[in-house]
Amino acid sequence: MKTLSVIGIGAGDPDYLTMQAVKALNRVDVFFLMDKGPAKSKLMDLRREICQRYIVDRTYRFVEAYSPERQRGELDYAASVEELNRAKQATFERLINDELSDGECAGFLVWGDPALYDSTVRILQAIVDAGRCAFEFEVIPGITSVQALAARHKVALNDIGGSLEITTGRRLAAGQVGDASSVVVMLDAEDAYRQVSDPDTHIYWGAYVGTPDEILIAGRLGDVADDIEATRKAARQANGWIMDSYLLRKP
Amino acid sequence: MKTLSVIGIGAGDPDYLTMQAVKALNRVDVFFLMDKGPAKSKLMDLRREICQRYIVDRTYRFVEAYSPERQRGELDYAASVEELNRAKQATFERLINDELSDGECAGFLVWGDPALYDSTVRILQAIVDAGRCAFEFEVIPGITSVQALAARHKVALNDIGGSLEITTGRRLAAGQVGDASSVVVMLDAEDAYRQVSDPDTHIYWGAYVGTPDEILIAGRLGDVADDIEATRKAARQANGWIMDSYLLRKP
Ligand SMILES: C[S@@+](CC[C@H](N)C(=O)[O-])C[C@H]1O[C@@H](n2cnc3c(N)ncnc32)[C@H](O)[C@@H]1O
Ligand SMILES: C[S@@+](CC[C@H](N)C(=O)[O-])C[C@H]1O[C@@H](n2cnc3c(N)ncnc32)[C@H](O)[C@@H]1O
Repeated sequence: MKTLSVIGIGAGDPDYLTMQAVKALNRVDVFFLMDKGPAKSKLMDLRREICQRYIVDRTYRFVEAYSPERQRGELDYAASVEELNRAKQATFERLINDELSDGECAGFLVWGDPALYDSTVRILQAIVDAGRCAFEFEVIPGITSVQALAARHKVALNDIGGSLEITTGRRLAAGQVGDASSVVVMLDAEDAYRQVSDPDTHIYWGAYVGTPDEILIAGRLGDVADDIEATRKAARQANGWIMDSYLLRKP
Repeated sequence: MKTLSVIGIGAGDPDYLTMQAVKALNRVDVFFLMDKGPAKSKLMDLRREICQRYIVDRTYRFVEAYSPERQRGELDYAASVEELNRAKQATFERLINDELSDGECAGFLVWGDPALYDSTVRILQAIVDAGRCAFEFEVIPGITSVQALAARHKVALNDIGGSLEITTGRRLAAGQVGDASSVVVMLDAEDAYRQVSDPDTHIYWGAYVGTPDEILIAGRLGDVADDIEATRKAARQANGWIMDSYLLRKP
């Protein structure tokens, strides 16, 4: 039997790794690395560093796989992600068939938590359902960027008894947000916080949270929105890429 | 200067502790324990076990504090929690003034993540704002019960590009839920999933997730709701208390 371990590594600080993740790392024979995009080399280095730091007395290998990029600018986001996931599924099946021997364990090192805006679990479940490869898999939770953001700002995610919506910049920009008193926005390529009408909304923004490049800005949206936009732009230019998210709290 | 560390210990398995939490534990001189309710002795034991397991070559002490219970059955939930938090704030101030010396570090071991349905951070911020005690504090994120639930069910929290609402049983029962395709319900004392009208909704339910008593049930709501209700009731009777939550996914 082949086994797979989908390991959440936390979203930034290598100290976000859990004891459970460290134990899982120490069972893995081969790590499948599938990073892509402008942050690729940084993210790959971090994964190798994590393995070096936490794996003791054990040999393991890395297999880098070409991971297709989503076509930008398409109208139907879900369809383009699904298309992408079909391509990813083929890649995963090939890796499991060709790069993993019986009795071995493969590891996927997922940024943050595998349950939040990540396709690995969904794709593995689809492969299991298709019944074409035989394997077992486990999922190890990791600290999400949402939690890192809240911890660094020392703020609760929810109001007392209130609800929290976690959503995308795309949905916020399209006005597809409910009336939760707290909203966390991820994957925002377009400064969607600009669309929030009430300037008394409080925003807790963070980029590269938990890393040495961390930037945090908090305040009344009407007061800090310009600052966030300028800071974002400068950071994206300086690093070639940006990873940021924010919590919006109704006044 | 006095320092305080609010440490998320994860929601169940002691292996959910992060490396960052372990490092923080090893800086603490005094742990303030404020558990209450029927699960009190179990939760206290787990905290002591965590300290024993992870703290190396360091002496530390525990201070148990009386923590007031929320008055049940009141109409205004937010008001009764606020009332409770004022009482807790007085308790915290007393602890910081009387039980912590200058130069020492106090630790709060918070179940799951301090940012999710927990008052510790809010109360400390209120004490800082009131300016009556001088201290610095840090917040260490921990694996939430939401992540533990998703990992154990091997399911993503969100649909592709969709949003996730995290809310309470009380709000679900009152119909105060938005139209996110995925909804996680916590703090449900009343089987609020019974109020969901579409029987094709998929539910991923878990009790005592990450602990040896873990119970998981998943399926079409119309098929498994009775089973969940009966299982919950039996488990609550057997243990004297229950800790459960669930993910609802629209069909
Ligand atoms: C594809 S999602 C993956 C989320 C990840 N699975 C998690 O648990 O955080 C990527 C988005 O997460 C957010 N993000 C990830 N890491 C971050 C960090 N260190 N600081 C701020 N935001 C981050 C950004 O909004 C980014 O667009
Ligand atoms: C006051 S909230 C605290 C949440 C915690 N801070 C967290 O991050 O998970 C308590 C609620 O969390 C959920 N919960 C906590 N631990 C759980 C577990 N091990 N299994 C299932 N649900 C749990 C239950 O819904 C419970 O009513």
